[in-house]
Amino acid sequence: MRAVVLLSGGLDSYTAAAIARNEGFELYALTIAYGQRHRREIESARTVARALGCKRHLELPIDLRAIGGSSLTSDTAVPRDRDLAAADIPSTYVPARNTIFLSLALAWGEVLGASDIVIGVNALDYSGYPDCRPEFIRAFESLATLATKAGVEGRQFHVHTPLIHLTKAQIIQQGLALGLDYGITHSCYDPSPDGQPCGRCDSCALRARGFVEAGVPDPLLLR
Amino acid sequence: MRAVVLLSGGLDSYTAAAIARNEGFELYALTIAYGQRHRREIESARTVARALGCKRHLELPIDLRAIGGSSLTSDTAVPRDRDLAAADIPSTYVPARNTIFLSLALAWGEVLGASDIVIGVNALDYSGYPDCRPEFIRAFESLATLATKAGVEGRQFHVHTPLIHLTKAQIIQQGLALGLDYGITHSCYDPSPDGQPCGRCDSCALRARGFVEAGVPDPLLLR
Repeated sequence: MRAVVLLSGGLDSYTAAAIARNEGFELYALTIAYGQRHRREIESARTVARALGCKRHLELPIDLRAIGGSSLTSDTAVPRDRDLAAADIPSTYVPARNTIFLSLALAWGEVLGASDIVIGVNALDYSGYPDCRPEFIRAFESLATLATKAGVEGRQFHVHTPLIHLTKAQIIQQGLALGLDYGITHSCYDPSPDGQPCGRCDSCALRARGFVEAGVPDPLLLR
Repeated sequence: MRAVVLLSGGLDSYTAAAIARNEGFELYALTIAYGQRHRREIESARTVARALGCKRHLELPIDLRAIGGSSLTSDTAVPRDRDLAAADIPSTYVPARNTIFLSLALAWGEVLGASDIVIGVNALDYSGYPDCRPEFIRAFESLATLATKAGVEGRQFHVHTPLIHLTKAQIIQQGLALGLDYGITHSCYDPSPDGQPCGRCDSCALRARGFVEAGVPDPLLLR
């Protein structure tokens, strides 16, 4: 059975994809090159797609810098050493990103005859982005059925979010149990020109805390 | 008040935008260059955006040919002389197109501080596409509020569909009453290399029938 999996090159989507593969899905990886500051993320996505044995890996460029509104898609500085418990949504929020990504996954899923979409969103150890919450995912599923020819013809789309209620440490533990090599992933929002993680953005901080709580070293830092 | 309007260069989106402008909205036009067979449509969108006095016109390329699944985004022939009353959804259906387009409009709307999105969908004189129906539009509005930072902070997004219950003839009559020049629009799915409409695809046939029923000549054919 085919599933479209949104693959960023990060730890979460790699783990979500591996869980889906373990459940028997044949993986069709979709990476949106949306104008990230560094191409490092896309290169990791390629490595991860190969490691997962994805049937196909589609890279789709769409320049969200033209829309802006985020420190990930403009020249605003990515926040460092932020309080992860703070209630506000940080400037790394990309307007409507997961709606755009899921729409494209839905389009490809419809063409492939796949009813299943996998996304590595997480509503626990995350930065408070609204489009990572279960209620958003459920609303997208309802929309998908109304939006498509396949839906009108009776196909029910499912958006799988195997990580949504896990802590980062639990995600890492599940991935390690599945034999994943997190050394090939990339999480940093603001790497150096040679691709080294900054260690201070939300993404680096959440990753570091996850490895500490999981009681294992981050293979990326051992290289 | 700002509104993001999805502008294709066709008759419907031009009229929908003009109705919104007439209601007092300041227009931000968004054209998605999604791999149409001919660039003619984009050129019309530019002319239409200028004619409407849009505050900005953003052209966003996204190659839906990589996804395919439609005669508009692949090398399959566009159907000609089709029975417009037939119940099936034709091959010109582009998987999840309006979901993708509305997602991008939502992203830009959030950045612009606009709660209003205008789309020229029509559920009467159309080709049976599922993402032109009122229930799809309502579902997208609900999703938009859950999907965005602005929505979480209390902004309610509205998707305006001023044409949804009009016949093509009524659309044309409304547009003419607003002083629109339909000679600058482009509707054909499958124009000749020099941009002339084929006269036989669904879009040409619906347009022709609309002008006949409105009792006015199509200025495009008088050129």
